Amino acid sequence: MKMSRLFTKTSKTAPAEADTANAKFLLQGAFVHQEMAGVYSWLPLGLRALNKVVGIIREEMNAIGGQEILMSALQPKENWETTGRWDSVDILFKIHSQTDKDYALGCSHEELVTPLVGSFIHSYKDLPLAVYQIQTKFRDELRAKSGVLRGREFGMKDLYSFHATQEDLEQYYQKVLQAYIRVFQRCGLDVKVAEASGGIFTKNVSHEFQVVTPAGEDMILACPNCTFAQNSEIATLKDGDKCPNCGGVLATVKGVEVGNIFDLGTKYSDAFKVEFTDESGKRQTALMGCYGIGTTRLVGTVVEASHDERGIIWPKSVAPFQIHLVSLGSKDADTQARITETATALYEDLMKQGIEVLWDEREASPGEKLADADLLGMPLRILVSEKTLKEESIEWKLRGEKDAKLVKLEDAVEEVGAFVKE
Amino acid sequence: MKMSRLFTKTSKTAPAEADTANAKFLLQGAFVHQEMAGVYSWLPLGLRALNKVVGIIREEMNAIGGQEILMSALQPKENWETTGRWDSVDILFKIHSQTDKDYALGCSHEELVTPLVGSFIHSYKDLPLAVYQIQTKFRDELRAKSGVLRGREFGMKDLYSFHATQEDLEQYYQKVLQAYIRVFQRCGLDVKVAEASGGIFTKNVSHEFQVVTPAGEDMILACPNCTFAQNSEIATLKDGDKCPNCGGVLATVKGVEVGNIFDLGTKYSDAFKVEFTDESGKRQTALMGCYGIGTTRLVGTVVEASHDERGIIWPKSVAPFQIHLVSLGSKDADTQARITETATALYEDLMKQGIEVLWDEREASPGEKLADADLLGMPLRILVSEKTLKEESIEWKLRGEKDAKLVKLEDAVEEVGAFVKE
Repeated sequence: MKMSRLFTKTSKTAPAEADTANAKFLLQGAFVHQEMAGVYSWLPLGLRALNKVVGIIREEMNAIGGQEILMSALQPKENWETTGRWDSVDILFKIHSQTDKDYALGCSHEELVTPLVGSFIHSYKDLPLAVYQIQTKFRDELRAKSGVLRGREFGMKDLYSFHATQEDLEQYYQKVLQAYIRVFQRCGLDVKVAEASGGIFTKNVSHEFQVVTPAGEDMILACPNCTFAQNSEIATLKDGDKCPNCGGVLATVKGVEVGNIFDLGTKYSDAFKVEFTDESGKRQTALMGCYGIGTTRLVGTVVEASHDERGIIWPKSVAPFQIHLVSLGSKDADTQARITETATALYEDLMKQGIEVLWDEREASPGEKLADADLLGMPLRILVSEKTLKEESIEWKLRGEKDAKLVKLEDAVEEVGAFVKE
Repeated sequence: MKMSRLFTKTSKTAPAEADTANAKFLLQGAFVHQEMAGVYSWLPLGLRALNKVVGIIREEMNAIGGQEILMSALQPKENWETTGRWDSVDILFKIHSQTDKDYALGCSHEELVTPLVGSFIHSYKDLPLAVYQIQTKFRDELRAKSGVLRGREFGMKDLYSFHATQEDLEQYYQKVLQAYIRVFQRCGLDVKVAEASGGIFTKNVSHEFQVVTPAGEDMILACPNCTFAQNSEIATLKDGDKCPNCGGVLATVKGVEVGNIFDLGTKYSDAFKVEFTDESGKRQTALMGCYGIGTTRLVGTVVEASHDERGIIWPKSVAPFQIHLVSLGSKDADTQARITETATALYEDLMKQGIEVLWDEREASPGEKLADADLLGMPLRILVSEKTLKEESIEWKLRGEKDAKLVKLEDAVEEVGAFVKE
């Protein structure tokens, strides 16, 4: 995409209210637009990053047999009364309609998915099954904060599984746990897995996935060498103890919770009478698990985990564009023509290969262009200027590294292609 | 996808409350699940159809320079007070938060997009620009009806354009009008374009896109030969008059409105002071257009326009799967083995070519399988049975045609591939 066509513009300064790196850089780079406290719209660059994250999650959910659906945000009050959560969940947005009905605006979907899936479950042969959606959630938070990390409206992937036996549920639970680790690692994150309390969802076993960063709200006791962690609130180990997995030395750090998984037991299937006939002909209640990843929060967490003082350093897997092509201006008309011609050819050749390129072809100073490239944080910056053309080259600089190098013009497309694929 | 893996099941009977073909067949085929009046969840087959429609729309919006964004559903009350619509739009859902704030739940996004885009417009050089989103809308309808045609929560694509001059706005408006015709025609629909009143959006020019079907809520005077129509409420022509475009004989019919486009003038840009500096250095107010397509409604309209008494007849462009492969059972073990082997090979060969196949490999009667194939409505049904194998063939039947034919096994994959591409 040509940058002059992009309707958004970066800001020179960070917004005063930005309390975290993700708030600062996502707003400054116009990845998102704040509508009010805790509510953001996603602009072209931000939406591209969000779609990358969603794509990774979708692949991993399909790989473990998840079937994608899309449930409504509006939910009947009656369903929330059935589970007793209408009055007990304090962050539930409630709506009163002009037809005198009360609706919940979904902060979670157990109250919908349980009767929905339950209506298709008759026999043990219908089990196990797993459904997921990628959808918008709403929470009436007392305090929204930390940019897109804790909002009143946010994107979420929620998966729900249904099982005939506890053993089957536990096996699937482990499968999801591993899939979640893959999702976060594919997003370039160093993730820890902690046993947790079930909160408003369940009293059974649950795990939370934590990414270590100073912007985190949770204190966790984490191993620096593997994914082991304990939430400090319920930790049985302490600072300096050895990791039971790998022997690393545990330390208390701040974490952002990017996902959580719950063994729901029969809490919801009891409430909605999701029963099936087992092999011996007896009626049994289905067991359920639920598994969530905040999609918009995950984008914010990637920014928290990967930035410097100048801006974001997107991992390739999440970057809105893989390549930031910069063509600098020249006062000499012939040189200017050659720079434009070279950059145009590069841009078109890379696009033909299906490589995602953001081309800064604006009339702007080198300082402004390079500052924007750092702020926006695409993984590889390639630059065409009078200086590089004298060497028949482009300048090649990884956003995450300090040094640049020259790459011969004739090799540029092939090397960029190899970088994108590696 | 193997049908035994699909968690949804068809119903033998239509739900009593189904008042239209789309409600009947989408529910009976488990494409959607009704959560309450006017609120539906989209199940795997329905979501696939919805994603097809969304994919077509996205292509056409990108082709006319639309930049995709994703705005929030929660909107500040202040923005709606700025335009005077907080009290005047009666279908606006309103939420009161525990932090004592009032929010609108978006039925439309002029109140968000205008200040959002406005913050990036400074000079005439920033214009024209167009942004769109594919997002969920909410309407506090007094009466929800007609399945997914008129709901309280629904999917929508909304595009907004910003211009420096009326001439430029009008040119873009015509470009969108043509893109909309392409969208609906690609969805297999016979669409009419009628001049309309601007309703709650504007007093300027607007057009609505109507698909002729008995389930329609609107009366339109339409030409049978071209896209010309007039909304009967404001028609200047009458039944029997000649079409001013092509001379066809106009007749009053019922239509479903699947899209509408509005010249908003400066209504919203005045309210939010979206100004730019023109070429002569003067401050001017930007002009706006807005353009909507109901995505979920469009799926329902396709069903209204294309079904028979047995079920849906999906056009290829919108079908959840292109191919419905049916393998019938046999009491003879050897024959059964050969049927399974043949169907498995077909399924795998087609999947390898990237063809979307729904394979009914369930243990069920021929009657049940064929009734489901008709109800679910994939464009091409191919069938493997003892009878077809005797002819070294498959049975080939288009959902929209009455007669079946035999196709030699050795040609089957190639012919299916050609059918999908044609």
